[in-house]
Amino acid sequence: MAAVSVLGAGSWGTALAILLNNNGHEVALWSIIEDEVNLLNDTRENKSKLPGIHIPDEINITNNLKEAILGKDMLVMAVPSKFVRNTANLMKEYVTKDQIIVNVAKGLEDDSLYTLADVINDEMPDNPVAVLSGPSHAEEVSRNIPTTCVAGSKDHDIAKKVQDIFMNSDFRVYTSSDVIGIEMGGALKNVIALAAGISDGIGFGDNTKAAIMTRGITEISRLGVAMGAETQTFAGLSGIGDLIVTCTSMHSRNRRAGILIGKGYSLQEALDEVKMVVEGVYTAKAALDLSEKYKVEMPIIREVNEVLFKGKDTKKAVEDLMIRDKKIEYKK
Amino acid sequence: MAAVSVLGAGSWGTALAILLNNNGHEVALWSIIEDEVNLLNDTRENKSKLPGIHIPDEINITNNLKEAILGKDMLVMAVPSKFVRNTANLMKEYVTKDQIIVNVAKGLEDDSLYTLADVINDEMPDNPVAVLSGPSHAEEVSRNIPTTCVAGSKDHDIAKKVQDIFMNSDFRVYTSSDVIGIEMGGALKNVIALAAGISDGIGFGDNTKAAIMTRGITEISRLGVAMGAETQTFAGLSGIGDLIVTCTSMHSRNRRAGILIGKGYSLQEALDEVKMVVEGVYTAKAALDLSEKYKVEMPIIREVNEVLFKGKDTKKAVEDLMIRDKKIEYKK
Repeated sequence: MAAVSVLGAGSWGTALAILLNNNGHEVALWSIIEDEVNLLNDTRENKSKLPGIHIPDEINITNNLKEAILGKDMLVMAVPSKFVRNTANLMKEYVTKDQIIVNVAKGLEDDSLYTLADVINDEMPDNPVAVLSGPSHAEEVSRNIPTTCVAGSKDHDIAKKVQDIFMNSDFRVYTSSDVIGIEMGGALKNVIALAAGISDGIGFGDNTKAAIMTRGITEISRLGVAMGAETQTFAGLSGIGDLIVTCTSMHSRNRRAGILIGKGYSLQEALDEVKMVVEGVYTAKAALDLSEKYKVEMPIIREVNEVLFKGKDTKKAVEDLMIRDKKIEYKK
Repeated sequence: MAAVSVLGAGSWGTALAILLNNNGHEVALWSIIEDEVNLLNDTRENKSKLPGIHIPDEINITNNLKEAILGKDMLVMAVPSKFVRNTANLMKEYVTKDQIIVNVAKGLEDDSLYTLADVINDEMPDNPVAVLSGPSHAEEVSRNIPTTCVAGSKDHDIAKKVQDIFMNSDFRVYTSSDVIGIEMGGALKNVIALAAGISDGIGFGDNTKAAIMTRGITEISRLGVAMGAETQTFAGLSGIGDLIVTCTSMHSRNRRAGILIGKGYSLQEALDEVKMVVEGVYTAKAALDLSEKYKVEMPIIREVNEVLFKGKDTKKAVEDLMIRDKKIEYKK
């Protein structure tokens, strides 16, 4: 049994806190929002983000970061990607260097283009940092639907600890040493989900969407490898696995925003309609910057940027992707 | 402009004949069934297999194999996998060694466990053999929905020729030298589609299906590499790309049969209900035989065999997959 805190009480943080409690660990669930903590304590349910799922009484739901951190073996960061640096900055007053930080958020930091593990490492350089990622809708995990993830750390013993603490008969965890590969797959999938949505919105078919997903993960893989990742990670759960779930689900805001754009909405009209943060819009820019920095060809990412920020006609974008120079599928 | 014959007038053969005609080639479409040829010539439409799509008058629809073969640059084999050897055997009386044979069927030969390119090579050893595969529902290709495929041949010049003849602005073709990888992905995807269907039939979620698809292609890749294929092919259009289309489409008989089995039907009851050949049932056995021959671990393939042929409870099969030994995601 371990003592674990989950920082961030969104749908994923809440689902993971319940899973860890069911695994027999001592669990705290922290949120920076006092009203949210009070409501969760009153109702023992996250009605807006994970409706119908009871939060067991053993879970200590708290607004007190110090209390959440002190004496814990593992700290799971489940805050939205844009709050990762701020949260890490608040945490460093209390953490001790033996505590394992597990990032489960997905994204890149604006401007710096850091992955989130790098942001955490930047703020808490003495702590071991791991990541947990894969095709895992929170609502399905909270209903004990069989799910698989990958736990990544450069230190195999740390990855093993994460696997030991999270794994159960409905939640299978594999280990990996490829943190950068896992993070790049998770961050950039949202751009490909936008592209897949655009294709659906235009009225193209399953062939087109499968092509965008397959060639999309090929682009992400090329960039990731240039940044030090392993090719095979992108063929795995945190790569194509997560992309499959994101591109085929109506739950994905990125896909929904893409569908609207494919139907002729402007970017702003689509964002107004979806009413939530569409991470892929920001990641699209960051991905283009990274492709230029690392001199990697990313035609789908480039066309998504043209459509989002330069008003390029969506059908023309697909046409331009189809009639590029004749290529071999991959270079050896 | 080239002279091309498509052998086999099913939905895929018909769609490819129309595509090749639209590309400006001289095209013949052959079927062994005389009544089918007469009907197609009368109506210029394949009403049962590709309804609503006009077959252009320039296409010579014929029952005469000699006429179909003589003087052609390329012969596209689009017959069902179990008729590939017989058809190749009939062809060899007429072929000349400069004619390129392009296989577009997917499967393995029973007993010999040969891939279809090997079967063709066995019958016509002097001819260059290529394959064309990828996420490509025939009905979408016939409606000019953007589609991508990969043309594979050990000889790059042959793969380039196939690319040149098939590619147009709606049908993008990549080249590859990995014939065995392309064929193994195409053949074994049907077994994984059965497994994905079973998961859907039980009532499991998107997480479970994405896990089965991702870990499924990992297994196929392991076997393929043991047989001489390249890992990256399975991350490409003929691997995960085709698997995505198959596992997410209601058109897939393999997935539909799996759904029924997941709901509690016996194999025979499911086959009676689907009423068509469910290739994955036969390929499941062949895949298990190959995994034993090449000493490759294939847990999903093994569990599918247990469910299909030994009546194992489907939920127990999923449970056994989830609680296996703790693993790393892939070995380097």
